[in-house]
Amino acid sequence: MQVIRTRESLQRLSDQCRAQGKLIALVPTMGALHAGHLSLVAEGHQRADEVWVSLFLNPTQFSDAKDLDAYPSTEEQDLELCRRAGAHVVWMPTREEVYPPGAQTWVEVRELSKPLCGSSRAGHFLGVSTVVSKLFLAAKPHYAIFGEKDFQQLAIIKRMVQDMGFDLEVIGAPTIREPDGLALSSRNVNLGPIARREALCIARALDRANDMASTGSASYDAVLDTVRAELNTTTLGQIDYVELCDPVTLESVSGDLSGPTLLAIAMYFQSENTDVAAPQVRLIDNRVLLR
Amino acid sequence: MQVIRTRESLQRLSDQCRAQGKLIALVPTMGALHAGHLSLVAEGHQRADEVWVSLFLNPTQFSDAKDLDAYPSTEEQDLELCRRAGAHVVWMPTREEVYPPGAQTWVEVRELSKPLCGSSRAGHFLGVSTVVSKLFLAAKPHYAIFGEKDFQQLAIIKRMVQDMGFDLEVIGAPTIREPDGLALSSRNVNLGPIARREALCIARALDRANDMASTGSASYDAVLDTVRAELNTTTLGQIDYVELCDPVTLESVSGDLSGPTLLAIAMYFQSENTDVAAPQVRLIDNRVLLR
Repeated sequence: MQVIRTRESLQRLSDQCRAQGKLIALVPTMGALHAGHLSLVAEGHQRADEVWVSLFLNPTQFSDAKDLDAYPSTEEQDLELCRRAGAHVVWMPTREEVYPPGAQTWVEVRELSKPLCGSSRAGHFLGVSTVVSKLFLAAKPHYAIFGEKDFQQLAIIKRMVQDMGFDLEVIGAPTIREPDGLALSSRNVNLGPIARREALCIARALDRANDMASTGSASYDAVLDTVRAELNTTTLGQIDYVELCDPVTLESVSGDLSGPTLLAIAMYFQSENTDVAAPQVRLIDNRVLLR
Repeated sequence: MQVIRTRESLQRLSDQCRAQGKLIALVPTMGALHAGHLSLVAEGHQRADEVWVSLFLNPTQFSDAKDLDAYPSTEEQDLELCRRAGAHVVWMPTREEVYPPGAQTWVEVRELSKPLCGSSRAGHFLGVSTVVSKLFLAAKPHYAIFGEKDFQQLAIIKRMVQDMGFDLEVIGAPTIREPDGLALSSRNVNLGPIARREALCIARALDRANDMASTGSASYDAVLDTVRAELNTTTLGQIDYVELCDPVTLESVSGDLSGPTLLAIAMYFQSENTDVAAPQVRLIDNRVLLR
């Protein structure tokens, strides 16, 4: 496994691979790898000859400096996990490599960046679409693989690739969960034991909504009421949003369930220890409901 | 010479060339080709094995619909000029190829897009940086060649390429002029005979400023006064802006001339005929003044 630091080295390696007819799959990550990321690497192996992982904690997608500071950093372990997962290349650029001094160029996917996480995390998706564009230009992959847990991010990247004409295919891979249903997230390690247990309300709420949808008789309002009631059973959790929307445009829907509908949830969980500097943990999850 | 319509065909051809070790130079144009564009093609031949010209009248860089309608369209002649100039490929995408239905992704170079033409043409450079990104992603060239006549555009594209990490080098080529000094522009054909003669005030003003700067004793204010006086000798012309700025940051400068300074001029010329729908013609020109 090669560990590459500079963009130029990565671009030369990509040219070499492409000239040899090798297909490259890129798995963009912010490090703090878990089994969810490794499933993306495995998906890459299914499709491409070369699987490349980028490890870059992107500062511009954190609207809150405390949130960035609290983001777990596990570099040595990340490299070991990539090695064991059979990654061919790990790209670990410096901040200056990705944002040169005086950088002032931004890639914005306008409408899709507004609702859901876009409304509670100002500038988040501007940072995401910008950095992902840069990763694509550096690796020049044939495939880019993202998890469906970050559903809005995946929708935005797909739209951006189509709009801009990036010469690659975006692949969404299913959310990986703990045995008890909690969606894997790098942020889960920041949950205390009580919040960790209470966070299961999200998976339970998604299951209940799914059951209601599959019976075919539920209205959107009834689904939302049930989901909110489930999420409100916690003592440390607080709902950021619960939304039902069109899975392509991410626009809110109303009326009766008809056709595939995205149920998206975001919740904050309070820290359990008394250190006031300890961050809240924000968790997101989703399910596409089918009648 | 191959004429290519779809983005995908162009990307496959680029892959082929790159795999064979051929260097590609891209000359992005909006058509209405003149000797200025052909000098860019010639510059491409100096550097690369393949010279590709894109012909795409980009609607998003026109803030004024009348301006877009008045932009000359000379497709057959453009193709013939490309052929004679030895272009290997002409890319003529449809509007939908570049802006798919529902397109909502924009590339913005923030600070550099604000002054000069950015302040008189709202959204112009947002359209430019977005479309040029798309052209780069479609052609995947090693070089991209732009004229220095559009100095701010060149500065923005250079900054964008550096910030985003596009795997290509941006080349600026000198402004080509008519024998009497008028900078070549696709818009020149819309000048009536009187305006055409009066438009020479711009080249005269640049020359006078250059003379003042080379003597080394001129203040910025004295240069600006001389330039404005020269431009105000016309009956059909109206100054849009006259600015002295840093050639890299494009920020206004003041005080005494020291180091290279960009003198940038934009003027409107009235139509001479009585058809009220006839557009004003906007001309720009510039010179980097050296002591």
